[in-house]
Amino acid sequence: MQDEASYTQTPGTTFNRKKHRGTYDVETIHSIVNTSSVCHVGFQPSADDPFPVVLPMIGHIAVYPPDSDEPPACYLHGYVSSRLMKLGADGLPVCIEATKVDGFTMALTPFNHSYNYRSAMLQGRATIVEDRDEKLWAMELITNAVVPDRWAHTRVPPDGGEMQSTRIMKMPIERASAKVKGHVPSDERKDLRNEDVVNSVWTGIIPVYEAFGEPVPSPYNRVQQVPAHIADFVKNENLNAKEFAVGAACRAEPSHGGGS
Amino acid sequence: MQDEASYTQTPGTTFNRKKHRGTYDVETIHSIVNTSSVCHVGFQPSADDPFPVVLPMIGHIAVYPPDSDEPPACYLHGYVSSRLMKLGADGLPVCIEATKVDGFTMALTPFNHSYNYRSAMLQGRATIVEDRDEKLWAMELITNAVVPDRWAHTRVPPDGGEMQSTRIMKMPIERASAKVKGHVPSDERKDLRNEDVVNSVWTGIIPVYEAFGEPVPSPYNRVQQVPAHIADFVKNENLNAKEFAVGAACRAEPSHGGGS
Repeated sequence: MQDEASYTQTPGTTFNRKKHRGTYDVETIHSIVNTSSVCHVGFQPSADDPFPVVLPMIGHIAVYPPDSDEPPACYLHGYVSSRLMKLGADGLPVCIEATKVDGFTMALTPFNHSYNYRSAMLQGRATIVEDRDEKLWAMELITNAVVPDRWAHTRVPPDGGEMQSTRIMKMPIERASAKVKGHVPSDERKDLRNEDVVNSVWTGIIPVYEAFGEPVPSPYNRVQQVPAHIADFVKNENLNAKEFAVGAACRAEPSHGGGS
Repeated sequence: MQDEASYTQTPGTTFNRKKHRGTYDVETIHSIVNTSSVCHVGFQPSADDPFPVVLPMIGHIAVYPPDSDEPPACYLHGYVSSRLMKLGADGLPVCIEATKVDGFTMALTPFNHSYNYRSAMLQGRATIVEDRDEKLWAMELITNAVVPDRWAHTRVPPDGGEMQSTRIMKMPIERASAKVKGHVPSDERKDLRNEDVVNSVWTGIIPVYEAFGEPVPSPYNRVQQVPAHIADFVKNENLNAKEFAVGAACRAEPSHGGGS
């Protein structure tokens, strides 16, 4: 489904509008999913239910076995997914979406208000991981996706009951695409020429990012100092996230863009 | 679909696991959606496409006409939704999901790692808003949902071309539910009694919240001072969001809970 660096364009992932924002670039797509705290997993629960369902889950894209030529898959874990898990055995068609909001764009007119954002969409058939080695590998993958190196700093390996009670889903990526927008506001010439409007309406970007607070120890915690794998994560993520959002807020609009 | 304060339980919104976290409370559900920057809108694009689609959109729940007895609907707006908009005219079954991550739970074992979070799911049939008055009202609703009182501080009303180029979807809520989890970590007795484990593994919560940076003026901005409706929004949201996440990180586990 992909050549070396980009996913294949299909009728289901072709961009109808604002084409310059769309991308099939593998690195872009994987990084949006893999830096998002939550993925949004859509599926049809049954043929006689008129409505689709969308559930929040933790997702991470990786290749198993590691460093092999297998196609990338998105591994999923979530507590609220018993309905999804029941349906997964036969290969359930799902859509996985992840979006990071990077800023609120305040323009002269409501029409040109928008967001700076990065959004990725993956489609494929999800199954439950049954292979014990792959499941253990995926559990470590997902634990470390939340806080790097966390797995090795906990009581591992999981015991038999924990292995049995945990379900991991795997969705080999059949289609994937992303949309990225991150630049200064833009407005129409007619408004930019209107002195009253330009002199009275503040325009700019409110940077938006996910922030992490000072870690709060549990009532039964006995480790006095917050360990480096957590403290460094909090510090670095906060710096990087803010820098990214402010960077997007200052970036010139790509020359092939237009409108908002 | 709702009595005064709660949505009706249906087979499609019944909680199979961790029932104590589920709620049909109207205020809880509406507040999750209405304080989320992004909603995730799932739908089936066509009968011959095996995969559902999930798109990020701005959504806000409200009643129109305001203060009437009409049932609440979720109004949606998004640039990436041309496929969705095309399908909306006949009443497309959609699922709208919004999730706020409030903390990463670090427990003794990977098995008891989880999130503090608030998640809401709405289902119903979406149509495009054609009525001009309702559309104008919804455009103001959605603009002000991002930053309160923004509409009145821009060049309004929208002109004819802007009205025509903007599409707003409306999904009267047929089913709705939410899941809320926000408390200190919990672990199994067997691990809590293991001195080696308790003495070596840091347990606690990393508070997570959406943060807003210092507003960045556009290259063509001429209003020297960031106006109060933006400055106050940034200040208050940052305070409230952090306080909420830290509050959840310190809260005792409800007594009817168990495990994570």
